[in-house]
Amino acid sequence: MKKLEERILKDGVLIEDRILKVDSFINFQIDVELTDEMGMELARIFKDSGATKVLTVETSGLPAAYATAKYLGNLPLLFAKKAKPNTDIGEDYTAMVRSFTKEVVNPIRVSRKYLQPGEKILIVDDFLASGAASLGLLDLVEQAGAECVGVGIVIEKEFQGGRALLEEKGLRVVSLAHITAFKDGKIEFGYTE
Amino acid sequence: MKKLEERILKDGVLIEDRILKVDSFINFQIDVELTDEMGMELARIFKDSGATKVLTVETSGLPAAYATAKYLGNLPLLFAKKAKPNTDIGEDYTAMVRSFTKEVVNPIRVSRKYLQPGEKILIVDDFLASGAASLGLLDLVEQAGAECVGVGIVIEKEFQGGRALLEEKGLRVVSLAHITAFKDGKIEFGYTE
Repeated sequence: MKKLEERILKDGVLIEDRILKVDSFINFQIDVELTDEMGMELARIFKDSGATKVLTVETSGLPAAYATAKYLGNLPLLFAKKAKPNTDIGEDYTAMVRSFTKEVVNPIRVSRKYLQPGEKILIVDDFLASGAASLGLLDLVEQAGAECVGVGIVIEKEFQGGRALLEEKGLRVVSLAHITAFKDGKIEFGYTE
Repeated sequence: MKKLEERILKDGVLIEDRILKVDSFINFQIDVELTDEMGMELARIFKDSGATKVLTVETSGLPAAYATAKYLGNLPLLFAKKAKPNTDIGEDYTAMVRSFTKEVVNPIRVSRKYLQPGEKILIVDDFLASGAASLGLLDLVEQAGAECVGVGIVIEKEFQGGRALLEEKGLRVVSLAHITAFKDGKIEFGYTE
């Protein structure tokens, strides 16, 4: 998505060819107009996926996931919480996610009530790097006996291996800004649908 | 907002005349169509507020705040994080918020970069009860030398006192579902604009 790539080049901050900060329009302050267009684009790409529900993980994936759900015909939007499971045994599905930037492992959870066998789930998140968050969400989907029909990502750092892990599982992965390398302070983009 | 009140009566779960759970359409799984209409309604109510930015706190206030920002002409949307301040001294404004349901006190923070003197901030959140979260957000706004031009709430429990505290500060508070009492397992609604 050209407009997103341009915005990343304009306002993204690349630190030590390793961490890309997009706080000013995605992670902290949200550019609502751009996010709405991102949702429209992900909805266009996944319109024939058969998705019955959109799943994301709090917090910063939520706006793009919301916009995607809206343009897929107001699908229900479910978000996994980054928190220890409820003490009520058996109420939640839980998975473990390793944070790339913070170097910690955290549980995510979703209520069993809202993830049912047979549902077709589109995962949407803001970043795909090592794939940890998306794999955690996929784990929740599989525990529920639901089916993941695709993974829609705002910004992908392909060189961190997440795409390969998801594609190995037969999943369609589409990112709106597909970054192939950080090199000498420059961001290199690859193909996007 | 009639449609929201009806949905609360249909799908809300009232526990011990004290806690209202709306997990199935606001807090965990989001009804995108309803949320979009809530944003449209809050935008209608605050269209003359002069707001230049919408502020909320993660996580479940985010969808309604997003929709409100969208219908206010794609205003930037800022969300405070529930996390300890960055170690970078002076990078954030922070405030303390006491959670009514969880009975703990947590810091919220927002980067100084995105909250500037002179900005006109509309606070949007999913719940107003004791007012702790809204007062925390207001504290951040005041620390920045910005101005709060209103507080838009999805569900208010007026009897918990939050409205009174905010109105004492001269703020306009509007809730889409204005609950005046929980009584014998019944939810009583008051006036909504």
